[in-house]
Amino acid sequence: MSESTASGGQRVRIVGTGLIGTSLGIALTRAGFQVSLDDPSPTAAALARDLGAGVLATDTVAVPDVVVVAAPPDVVADVVVAELSRWPDAVVTDAASVKGAVLTSLQHRGADLSRYVGSHPMAGREKSGPMAAQGDLFVGRSWVVAPGPDASAAAIALVRRIAEAAGSVVLEMTPDEHDAAVAAVSHVPQIAASLVASRLRDLPSGAVALSGQGIRDVTRIAASDPGMWTQILAGNAPAVRGVLESLAGELDAVLAALRRLESDPAGGSVGARAVLARAVADGNAGHALIPGKHGAAPTTYATVTVVVPDEPGALGRLLRDVGEAGVNMEDLHLEHEIGQMFGLAELAVLPAAVQPLVSALTSLGWPVHE
Amino acid sequence: MSESTASGGQRVRIVGTGLIGTSLGIALTRAGFQVSLDDPSPTAAALARDLGAGVLATDTVAVPDVVVVAAPPDVVADVVVAELSRWPDAVVTDAASVKGAVLTSLQHRGADLSRYVGSHPMAGREKSGPMAAQGDLFVGRSWVVAPGPDASAAAIALVRRIAEAAGSVVLEMTPDEHDAAVAAVSHVPQIAASLVASRLRDLPSGAVALSGQGIRDVTRIAASDPGMWTQILAGNAPAVRGVLESLAGELDAVLAALRRLESDPAGGSVGARAVLARAVADGNAGHALIPGKHGAAPTTYATVTVVVPDEPGALGRLLRDVGEAGVNMEDLHLEHEIGQMFGLAELAVLPAAVQPLVSALTSLGWPVHE
Repeated sequence: MSESTASGGQRVRIVGTGLIGTSLGIALTRAGFQVSLDDPSPTAAALARDLGAGVLATDTVAVPDVVVVAAPPDVVADVVVAELSRWPDAVVTDAASVKGAVLTSLQHRGADLSRYVGSHPMAGREKSGPMAAQGDLFVGRSWVVAPGPDASAAAIALVRRIAEAAGSVVLEMTPDEHDAAVAAVSHVPQIAASLVASRLRDLPSGAVALSGQGIRDVTRIAASDPGMWTQILAGNAPAVRGVLESLAGELDAVLAALRRLESDPAGGSVGARAVLARAVADGNAGHALIPGKHGAAPTTYATVTVVVPDEPGALGRLLRDVGEAGVNMEDLHLEHEIGQMFGLAELAVLPAAVQPLVSALTSLGWPVHE
Repeated sequence: MSESTASGGQRVRIVGTGLIGTSLGIALTRAGFQVSLDDPSPTAAALARDLGAGVLATDTVAVPDVVVVAAPPDVVADVVVAELSRWPDAVVTDAASVKGAVLTSLQHRGADLSRYVGSHPMAGREKSGPMAAQGDLFVGRSWVVAPGPDASAAAIALVRRIAEAAGSVVLEMTPDEHDAAVAAVSHVPQIAASLVASRLRDLPSGAVALSGQGIRDVTRIAASDPGMWTQILAGNAPAVRGVLESLAGELDAVLAALRRLESDPAGGSVGARAVLARAVADGNAGHALIPGKHGAAPTTYATVTVVVPDEPGALGRLLRDVGEAGVNMEDLHLEHEIGQMFGLAELAVLPAAVQPLVSALTSLGWPVHE
């Protein structure tokens, strides 16, 4: 029986102690794994150790069962090749956000692909680096395990076990399926948000004041880091290109419809209106596919709107009162408008909870609107 | 002195008692105006009256000082022409969400444009109809007053006064400026959200489970009504087409860059990467123009993340504790992940408030992460 089997896959080596590597080390150490830490920066590795992510690789002679490569995307393939070579009995995985390009690169180099299983924990924060690490970073998040065609069942099982030990929900798919999925649910939305936000630069001063909650939501991720996103988009260029071409094709149809309406606003453009209606209706259908809370299909919630004074604790008092009414809020949206010193809180609740909630809040003096 | 001047612009006639008309009637009645209500549906008008929006037009002989046309967009111009003709001393305004097309239509019909001042209250709800009306619908919202070149100063002042009496913040701009602004901050974001959401229909079942908060935000408004949006987009076709062409041009550049990276992933595509980085950076710049809370420039807030159990009152207890710590939350974001029965609350606070807040919440037993 090999040493790997004897130790039951408990020995995990993490290469790269940034946000993901350090958070994973903390989570696995807490779960009883023996974690060793390596990083090109000894300072970063020592910091991760001090945060409880494991012991330094230089302080242990243990042979790892699993190596997790949590390096920047542009060096992941190099590091995976080196780790497969250095630990001939270990399973190696990585945490890069694009999977096809890494696998192709490993294939070109003749790496032992039976022991490599790519993965992608769908977790992250605006902050980066070990100081932002948190042991529950992966709890409740999806973690894609994306084995290539040559990966062994035992290797896949070990990587799944790591993801589950960190608290994630494992989704298994092929590297190409993964890349197409993240192109559609993450990379193309990022580009769309950036392009929409970019248009605001062309408005005269003052006109941006008309911005409401819609554009705030659409463009929130437009504040993301250009350097990081250039790496991500370039690494997933084929899949992003595919989804973006589909979007551009429909955009061209919408533009053609708008031009027809412009030249014939009064009538005779019934077909043009149908193109616009279809674009919005198709968006309805796509939006309805996004899973709601707890993985269930989206439920239609009712909204109760309450005027909340802009002072410390006001919102807390409101939500305490909501809780004491025995009502569980499904979602909460705060809106502050320009020039005003108070906000509107929109509470999403199950339809059956509306009347009890309105009665309870009204009796406590809150200005409530269904 | 005309009767209009004698009554000080206090007599307001509202034509169209849907959500906007009824809400405005309630607000103006509360503010001491004499409001009369008219609607093609006697039932809708009577309902608005019963909700406190004013008296029925059929029950009064008063001559209005101001007429507010709150009719569906496709009949607004007809109704404005009729009202200008019926009340030769009254100022007439409308509440349609597109302004240039209405003015052009009135010009073609030779209406008295000295007495017409278009306006657009930037308020609305997912619900429609008089039952959704609320007297504070306009409080703290922007209300665009968009006079044409022939509008008299007295007419503009009367319409501004109505908007201010309803509690709105008045922004004055030309009809074309208004239409360009709403194309960029509302109509094009709607199209982008719909087109992004639409792509999810092409994913295999299960892949949509990778959806995170980013695409949820980008596509939230993709759930909007196709019929309503077809009217809005068709009514503002020239301005929407202009902004959308600018977006399509940049999209083409991004697509070309992705194709270059696809054919030469390793290197030699430095220019292609620069195109991607520029697209995201321009999005940063546009996003930064959106006004923050209270009309101030956006402030960078720090985020404190707290794990909240999914049970009635838990979030309320948390926010009460936040309030008792003397910290004012600038924003709150709730995240629920698939398959999990608890959520993460991300509290945005001023950077200086992070340490006091973390200390206070930690001492009360909340699992907190900066």
